[in-house]
Amino acid sequence: MTYCLALRLDEGLVFLSDTRTNAGVDNVGTYRKMHVIEPAADRLFVLESAGNLATTQQVLDRIRQDLQASGDHANLATVSHLFDAALYIGRISREVVAEHQEALSAIGADATATFILGGQVGTEPPDILMVYPEGNYIRASDERPFLQIGETKYGKFMLELAVTADVDLITATKIALGSMMTTAAANLSVGPPYDIGVYRPGAMELEEVRVEAGSPLLTRLQEIWHKHQLAAIAELPTLQRESPD
Amino acid sequence: MTYCLALRLDEGLVFLSDTRTNAGVDNVGTYRKMHVIEPAADRLFVLESAGNLATTQQVLDRIRQDLQASGDHANLATVSHLFDAALYIGRISREVVAEHQEALSAIGADATATFILGGQVGTEPPDILMVYPEGNYIRASDERPFLQIGETKYGKFMLELAVTADVDLITATKIALGSMMTTAAANLSVGPPYDIGVYRPGAMELEEVRVEAGSPLLTRLQEIWHKHQLAAIAELPTLQRESPD
Repeated sequence: MTYCLALRLDEGLVFLSDTRTNAGVDNVGTYRKMHVIEPAADRLFVLESAGNLATTQQVLDRIRQDLQASGDHANLATVSHLFDAALYIGRISREVVAEHQEALSAIGADATATFILGGQVGTEPPDILMVYPEGNYIRASDERPFLQIGETKYGKFMLELAVTADVDLITATKIALGSMMTTAAANLSVGPPYDIGVYRPGAMELEEVRVEAGSPLLTRLQEIWHKHQLAAIAELPTLQRESPD
Repeated sequence: MTYCLALRLDEGLVFLSDTRTNAGVDNVGTYRKMHVIEPAADRLFVLESAGNLATTQQVLDRIRQDLQASGDHANLATVSHLFDAALYIGRISREVVAEHQEALSAIGADATATFILGGQVGTEPPDILMVYPEGNYIRASDERPFLQIGETKYGKFMLELAVTADVDLITATKIALGSMMTTAAANLSVGPPYDIGVYRPGAMELEEVRVEAGSPLLTRLQEIWHKHQLAAIAELPTLQRESPD
């Protein structure tokens, strides 16, 4: 499985992806799920993927193929808006799924993939959109400006608690990592290394950090995280029967 | 939806249930999901339920009916082991589902229910078991001695982090409440009041506390919980690029 998330803040965008893939429990791999596409000087796209790994790879290959081919077909270098890019990716995703769904259904597998597309096109404000397998998209809400794909439940409380548009990028990155560590602690199908991307409006480039499994940084993050969870438990008041039975 | 959990510790058992039910988003109710059954002096059962509300109510009615009826049919007063009680409840559950599944399937609804059964029979050690809709059951593991039903993902990390058999009952109750608050924060279908039950080996009675919505206790619990989550975020180290791109 997978856990990817993206936050849309006043100061910019934050992306975070795990890298674990599995086809059954005996076929576990490590694949990058955060992809940066810079098809022209005036635009940058970040694509996070969850779902069928073959579908996501073919979608990425089709995106690159369309960028290299001559002609006036749609591609990410020519779309005018981020939502146009979302619709374009949604259409490619449906085409790839249509090509393989019958064969995959025969073995009980699902060909579909879900994407988070973030970035900036020209002078439009940076944004994040979720692209559904059906090819349509939604934006993050103004109230809780985050999107999640994959194993979204385990780490949702932290985003609900702390993500608002005015959170600074450093704090936002920590919230995202907290959400990721919570998920990885509860679900074996999500795991490090983790890819973090930070985008500042107008930058047209992504600042990237990879947090490796077993790195001193990740160990430190986990220690601090666990310490505070246990401190919270310790400080909770002891329950008393409020009235006799 | 629902969130119920149970912990099996050296000092005893802890049960925690929310009370929110919903049939669609416009039909939200409050029902007790933790049921105490004391059919004889040498035994106590706690039954937590998730799934179809009508099925769980009919299962409870059938359990009581079997206790009142004369004859030598199986009932909770006569079973010799907790696992016999689990099989008995599983059989009743399947019978009730079989009675209604066809009509419910026609409107796209699911008749099934899942139960956590805990308690003590005679001199056997107290235990907790999950009863599946198919009528079979599992025990909690020795390594992570907890069971969850309903919306189990949102609050699982806290149980994974902190529940071991040697945790004391007071701490265990706090862990359970932390897991419940995390779930309720992330999922509207889970909410207060919360029912807590604590069982000590040999007691043959359940100590019960209800935590009401809006109670000073719940407010205080939430404040402490949020404070520590935010403190954890604040203390996490700031990420640096570990090497230039």
